[in-house]
Amino acid sequence: MKGNVLIAQSGGPTAVINASCAGIIQEAFKHKKEIDGVYGAVNGILGVLKEELLDLNQEDPATIELLKRTPSSALGSCRYKLSDKEYDRVLSVLKAHHIRYAFFIGGNDTMDTANRVNHLAKQAGYELRVIGVPKTVDNDLVATDHCPGYPSVARWLAIAVRDAGLDTKAIYCADPVKIIETMGRDSGWITAATALARERPDDPPHLIYLPERPFVREKFIADVKRVYEKVGYVVMAVCEGLRDPEGKLLSESKAKVDVDGFGHAQLGGVADLLSSMIKTDLGIKARFDKPGTIQRVAMSGASEVDIAEAYEAGRLAVDKAVRGESGYMISLQRMPGKKYQCAMGMVALGKVANARRTVPDEFINTDGNDVTPAFIDWLRPLIKPGLAEYARLKKVLVGKKVG
Amino acid sequence: MKGNVLIAQSGGPTAVINASCAGIIQEAFKHKKEIDGVYGAVNGILGVLKEELLDLNQEDPATIELLKRTPSSALGSCRYKLSDKEYDRVLSVLKAHHIRYAFFIGGNDTMDTANRVNHLAKQAGYELRVIGVPKTVDNDLVATDHCPGYPSVARWLAIAVRDAGLDTKAIYCADPVKIIETMGRDSGWITAATALARERPDDPPHLIYLPERPFVREKFIADVKRVYEKVGYVVMAVCEGLRDPEGKLLSESKAKVDVDGFGHAQLGGVADLLSSMIKTDLGIKARFDKPGTIQRVAMSGASEVDIAEAYEAGRLAVDKAVRGESGYMISLQRMPGKKYQCAMGMVALGKVANARRTVPDEFINTDGNDVTPAFIDWLRPLIKPGLAEYARLKKVLVGKKVG
Repeated sequence: MKGNVLIAQSGGPTAVINASCAGIIQEAFKHKKEIDGVYGAVNGILGVLKEELLDLNQEDPATIELLKRTPSSALGSCRYKLSDKEYDRVLSVLKAHHIRYAFFIGGNDTMDTANRVNHLAKQAGYELRVIGVPKTVDNDLVATDHCPGYPSVARWLAIAVRDAGLDTKAIYCADPVKIIETMGRDSGWITAATALARERPDDPPHLIYLPERPFVREKFIADVKRVYEKVGYVVMAVCEGLRDPEGKLLSESKAKVDVDGFGHAQLGGVADLLSSMIKTDLGIKARFDKPGTIQRVAMSGASEVDIAEAYEAGRLAVDKAVRGESGYMISLQRMPGKKYQCAMGMVALGKVANARRTVPDEFINTDGNDVTPAFIDWLRPLIKPGLAEYARLKKVLVGKKVG
Repeated sequence: MKGNVLIAQSGGPTAVINASCAGIIQEAFKHKKEIDGVYGAVNGILGVLKEELLDLNQEDPATIELLKRTPSSALGSCRYKLSDKEYDRVLSVLKAHHIRYAFFIGGNDTMDTANRVNHLAKQAGYELRVIGVPKTVDNDLVATDHCPGYPSVARWLAIAVRDAGLDTKAIYCADPVKIIETMGRDSGWITAATALARERPDDPPHLIYLPERPFVREKFIADVKRVYEKVGYVVMAVCEGLRDPEGKLLSESKAKVDVDGFGHAQLGGVADLLSSMIKTDLGIKARFDKPGTIQRVAMSGASEVDIAEAYEAGRLAVDKAVRGESGYMISLQRMPGKKYQCAMGMVALGKVANARRTVPDEFINTDGNDVTPAFIDWLRPLIKPGLAEYARLKKVLVGKKVG
């Protein structure tokens, strides 16, 4: 079956979406017998709805190659749930442009969209091959060892937390507590990754709080106090999606307040709230860093494993589609053995759509304030290159003479 | 005159303090005739007060070499203003440990301390050579072209803002406005550096707000509206030290509020406030990134020019001291000519102490919402390597068929 290719992306950007995109494009160009044009939807499914399609055959091959090292989403993305009527419109556009191969790069919402497009085409008797390419910094897709995008945010954060930890270690006399707020609305995978910053037991981060465990203020304060008294300073990573024991988001438990005629100000986030708690309960100043979207698209921190896997996931999607497969998402399967190896397979879109994988119990410590060694063993192979070596002074004190 | 060396550091960490430290140590080891021991004060002047001195001769040469690529301050830092009595104690400790060469790495407060120690030793007839080594991400020292530490935070932020800008460009359908809050309590040098992220006129950052210009809400909202209507999304860099026309810090104009039994919560910062303004006045959702201390110590973004200059400033300080100089800070002087060259000289500590250099008028645009090309020309040579090349698609649209 010969036809055109459509590539669409949805959801938040990552450092390696464009690598998946390059994998799809470069592989598609190799299949002259099956594929004519390669089209990119402007801002994902919205671009299909609006019939805004980019002709990627017009692009310079060097530009496509450079996509492997370009963060965010070159085609544009969106967050949009299609209505039934809009699904019909999508099918009309695909038909009109003779799209026979559709690749959707995204998370569980995107896989739901892909799944529905696949079924709709089947019902309508329109021959269409639909393959999903996994992408999410949240790492919360089921039926895959991990998700492209995650190893890069993990590596970037490990580097950032190690550096910011050294900062607090040096200036603890003035700023003894630092809270680093990470992304992760519903799962703690991103926050957990900061553990890689730690090389020795008392290294930062000293505490890691995931949304998989309820946040209890008294326990939190006791944790901070204990580390402060033992180590002399405290660096912690907290997830933006932390919830109280009633399941309410901490970030939503903060009121909107009218301030100084500036109108309604919504409070800043979890880290801000926690720093207030520490000041109130312990009388210790705490500052916070909230790298926000910088963490998820930072190319400078990208993992080489992630770039290569994202590319391969895109490439394999085309390979599978031209062989006649449809209705699947590419999944990453870790092979048994000491050396990290990742085999790629497929999983039914329906199995992935709208499902979510949180951090499992074996990766969270008993106290609910750190990860386990098993998590670190699982994560470390995904981070390439590892963190650069830093100097550690022996710190031999000179004998006192004044006293 | 033969004696021991003291190295002390104060104020906020940077990516290259340890490079200056390595410059001092490695140069000191070369002057066997003049120098015996090389001591590092634990947490700056506090370590002198407490007589906590590290014997750096005990360290492995490879560790000292690795300091050039290790961020933050390996000796530890502090923020501490000495009382008169404590100055006497400092002198006693210096005498007791036969310190004849004292090097203070820091900003304008540190240079004030160095200046007083120098005068005190002279008054007491104790032969001591005191040289300051400039260090501050704020870039606000006078009588120097720029300050070690600044080019690295500038490079890191330019990279981060370009990446975060691509993020908003891709997902503007869902998140059309992004505010990136940078450091800079009293000057806008750090915020201004984000302009390097921009390669073409409509690239982010679209707006840059420095504390050198008063913040006026109506003008700000008009700026955001104009960019939003023209470009379709808005990415801006704002300084944490922005002030209203009365000179009051925006961050202080926000009330402390009691929230949901969680105690007193202090609002998050300038970016948080501005995002509320945008929501209130324009009805547009705005999100913000606040990289905080991550920006100032990020080794991954460090400029090679900065690392080399920080090292050389430390090395030269020792060279000058053994030649008999005292009471000066090393200063960086840009040589005339097309190719960037930096000559290092000296400036009297008294001239630098407590003085502050803000961003000059010729570097700020007339509207007060951006920098000038002159600023970019001044900054660019300090950023080495430059920003990596990213792919830019031509974006040729396929002709519509459904319409």
